[in-house]
Amino acid sequence: MSDPIQLGLVGLGTIARNQHLPSLEDVPALRLAAIASRHAGHETLPSYHDVVEMLAKEPGLQAVSLCTPPQGRFAQAVAAINAGKHVMLEKPPGASVSEVEGLARLAREKGVTLFATWHSREAAAVEDARALLAEATIRRAKITWKEDVRHWHPGQEWIWQPGGLGVFDPGINALSILTRILPEPVHPVAAHLEVPENKQAPIAAKLDMQTASGAPVQAEFDWRQTGPQTWDILVETDGPDILLREGGAKLFVGGEERISAEDREYRRLYARFAELIAAGESDVDLSPLQLVADAFLLGAQTRVEAFHDDP
Amino acid sequence: MSDPIQLGLVGLGTIARNQHLPSLEDVPALRLAAIASRHAGHETLPSYHDVVEMLAKEPGLQAVSLCTPPQGRFAQAVAAINAGKHVMLEKPPGASVSEVEGLARLAREKGVTLFATWHSREAAAVEDARALLAEATIRRAKITWKEDVRHWHPGQEWIWQPGGLGVFDPGINALSILTRILPEPVHPVAAHLEVPENKQAPIAAKLDMQTASGAPVQAEFDWRQTGPQTWDILVETDGPDILLREGGAKLFVGGEERISAEDREYRRLYARFAELIAAGESDVDLSPLQLVADAFLLGAQTRVEAFHDDP
Repeated sequence: MSDPIQLGLVGLGTIARNQHLPSLEDVPALRLAAIASRHAGHETLPSYHDVVEMLAKEPGLQAVSLCTPPQGRFAQAVAAINAGKHVMLEKPPGASVSEVEGLARLAREKGVTLFATWHSREAAAVEDARALLAEATIRRAKITWKEDVRHWHPGQEWIWQPGGLGVFDPGINALSILTRILPEPVHPVAAHLEVPENKQAPIAAKLDMQTASGAPVQAEFDWRQTGPQTWDILVETDGPDILLREGGAKLFVGGEERISAEDREYRRLYARFAELIAAGESDVDLSPLQLVADAFLLGAQTRVEAFHDDP
Repeated sequence: MSDPIQLGLVGLGTIARNQHLPSLEDVPALRLAAIASRHAGHETLPSYHDVVEMLAKEPGLQAVSLCTPPQGRFAQAVAAINAGKHVMLEKPPGASVSEVEGLARLAREKGVTLFATWHSREAAAVEDARALLAEATIRRAKITWKEDVRHWHPGQEWIWQPGGLGVFDPGINALSILTRILPEPVHPVAAHLEVPENKQAPIAAKLDMQTASGAPVQAEFDWRQTGPQTWDILVETDGPDILLREGGAKLFVGGEERISAEDREYRRLYARFAELIAAGESDVDLSPLQLVADAFLLGAQTRVEAFHDDP
């Protein structure tokens, strides 16, 4: 086996500590060698203030993983790609579709791998759902994605700012699964966004879509859900109903549970990143972000009650 | 010379009467054979209620041109493409990027031509500006696009509804020129949208963009401009400044007027449509609509004074 790829991680927030760091320990093809974070240092690894300093001081790095908020991601990715590093992007991959298309062009020019990740696509039951739907006729589909923002994003201001997506930050996980499992593309038909008076991003949204052959796909996203949380995708077909629950961790076929497995999403992402680098390939599918951009483009916005982290 | 292509026109509003009908008279490669319009009939041509009826009653049609509002365009285009007709789309080509990407896929499957038009790219001075900028280093660029909505869009409700784009309806003309003349792609960095209290689309917007190599591009769109109207694009380079005025009709190089020509935009569009059909090709560049979708995605919205057609 060849030497592990030397990786630098940028951004040391919740998602990095809960997912990226432990997952990297389980992926032998990659070796975490340095950290860049404005606010925190790592206990044992060399830590730098930002990606530019890390790139300058750690010339041995071959790859960079960005898990900073999307609004500042572009400049960091450009710096890493221009330094000849392979780059992996946490979801959403950027603050706009155009900028990530720009990164993909730059990565091609520089001959490095760019991987725009969608961690929910790595949930245990997603590929089985895709296989079951490959030959099916879709009658309709329904996404229900309701969670408590106070629990999952305490004090995270960037998600409420322009480019932070609001409730589409979790909602894009559902859209990343949807666009993976359906056998044909979808496009938005109508959208309704509820934006708190004191915020710049929606706290709830309804999105009506349609498959290329005309089947309706409805999505309901809500960040005001207390009590049980819901991350379901139901697809009605000419055969049995296909139901993904718990964000793709569980699969029900015609009401019967088929798969329920532990979460290995980020381990799979990093293993795939190493495979892409070895193959000299990129993976940049922007269809989930495109659906969200289109929802903002054609959506009606309503101002709703102000939101405060402390109720 | 071969027989002219038999064309059906869908939508008989202002743009059809002012531009499409007179231009078609001057393009010998196309022959206008039928009209579909919900609200009006043509004086001499066979007229139908909608595209579906027109397709059923006029089997000899080879091509269809859609100049209806963008919100209903998708279903009309699907009907025409599925009937094996070549399709030309007025700008903006649809209510979302995803749906037009879907049309492009369908057109490829059916082996017909799809032409997403940007009439401002056919303005007299645009190709000369592009040629002058091809080898230049861009320092900065500035779009100023200010007009009186009451004069140009009297009583047009669809432009204010979701998917109608508001001030980006004229603004996208500037973006279609910008993306044609600059030698590298641009992406939005920040946007500010001013939406009247009683409307769903912006009456004014500022859009900060950046070229791939980092040059700033600013755009100012405003629909509240009375008196002289402004449709300017200024590009500062390492050589002389390039200034397009009057929507691309006039070109100034280093302050000196080079080109000033009559408007032949729609004649050129239809001639190009006939060429694409003859060559079996499509032309679907969605970058202007992508910039607008991204502006909505990452833009901050402010509510401003209600707008009424009668001041």
